[in-house]
Amino acid sequence: MIQQLEIQLPAYPRGYHVIDSVLAEYLPELPKTGLIHFFIQHTSAALSINENADPSVRDDFEEVLNHLIPENEEYYTHVLEGLDDMPAHIKSSLLGSELTIPITNYKINLGMWQGIYLCEFRNRGSRRKIIVTIYS
Amino acid sequence: MIQQLEIQLPAYPRGYHVIDSVLAEYLPELPKTGLIHFFIQHTSAALSINENADPSVRDDFEEVLNHLIPENEEYYTHVLEGLDDMPAHIKSSLLGSELTIPITNYKINLGMWQGIYLCEFRNRGSRRKIIVTIYS
Amino acid sequence: MIQQLEIQLPAYPRGYHVIDSVLAEYLPELPKTGLIHFFIQHTSAALSINENADPSVRDDFEEVLNHLIPENEEYYTHVLEGLDDMPAHIKSSLLGSELTIPITNYKINLGMWQGIYLCEFRNRGSRRKIIVTIYS
Repeated sequence: MIQQLEIQLPAYPRGYHVIDSVLAEYLPELPKTGLIHFFIQHTSAALSINENADPSVRDDFEEVLNHLIPENEEYYTHVLEGLDDMPAHIKSSLLGSELTIPITNYKINLGMWQGIYLCEFRNRGSRRKIIVTIYS
Repeated sequence: MIQQLEIQLPAYPRGYHVIDSVLAEYLPELPKTGLIHFFIQHTSAALSINENADPSVRDDFEEVLNHLIPENEEYYTHVLEGLDDMPAHIKSSLLGSELTIPITNYKINLGMWQGIYLCEFRNRGSRRKIIVTIYS
Repeated sequence: MIQQLEIQLPAYPRGYHVIDSVLAEYLPELPKTGLIHFFIQHTSAALSINENADPSVRDDFEEVLNHLIPENEEYYTHVLEGLDDMPAHIKSSLLGSELTIPITNYKINLGMWQGIYLCEFRNRGSRRKIIVTIYS
């Protein structure tokens, strides 16, 4: 059986945000066993899984990715939409647009320290749309 | 229900290519609701989702990834297959070998600005094989 | 039909390890056509697909990722769990926590040169847990 829904997240500031509890508000009752797939319909944001406990991890993510993909490199040609735009596209492909996670005993079966990150790469992020597909 | 098919893409030059319309030629009629999974059977190419409109984004992808994973680093030991080979393997794991995308109302449900990229990392790319699995 | 199982891998040293044959020991008979999903429940290890033949590729992976995400950057704030900890989190999101791979003719349908990598980013990796979901 397959179920699908669309979630419009609130707008988040640039950075990395654990959104498990926000997503949970939108989700229907989950099946006993299955997979849940999250797909973000944008090319300057991403979904990823990482540490859910210490906010310093999310701060360091912002710093490290900014060092890895700096703004304002002289070789960028796609620059009309702002200095944060082209780096946002690259980060989006490096971290990924989608996640598939197992459902076990009616719950999303993340590890104890795992959370779902919304990665917002734009200085002024808009409300991001996520398509959720549940398969059982 | 599950359907599976194999696609042999034409050979592409090194770079990032939006292949939505090429893939569409090979795909059967899609179900109303489901997931479609694309898997590339190679370790020096990748599949990713990014901006579908401005070719300068794809040009910048080539530049940025080449700066990130340069050829000819003195510490590479896997060098027999050419200077572009080891960087190609790394890029392939960073961008990923596979994509799962929702199907909604009989269509691949990408965001307005999203396209499917074939990322060809070799100077002389061969014809790449993709396994498509459709689940509904 | 969906099947799910949990695998506890042996502990691996820091580095990149082809684990196809280890995984195969745990897997049930596979369906004729389907998808298999591997999910690692940790934030300092990853699953990826890459070259299965030449161990020098895996050695170079270790080197390249260490150059890309160095330890001991002065701007890291999440440092209490060791110099290898924050880089491990970043690498985990760059390489990814999960893989979906087609099943064709009762087998995991990887390309000829592809293998499944367990990427262990900690100096002292523990036994990693993987949730496997098979859909047909």
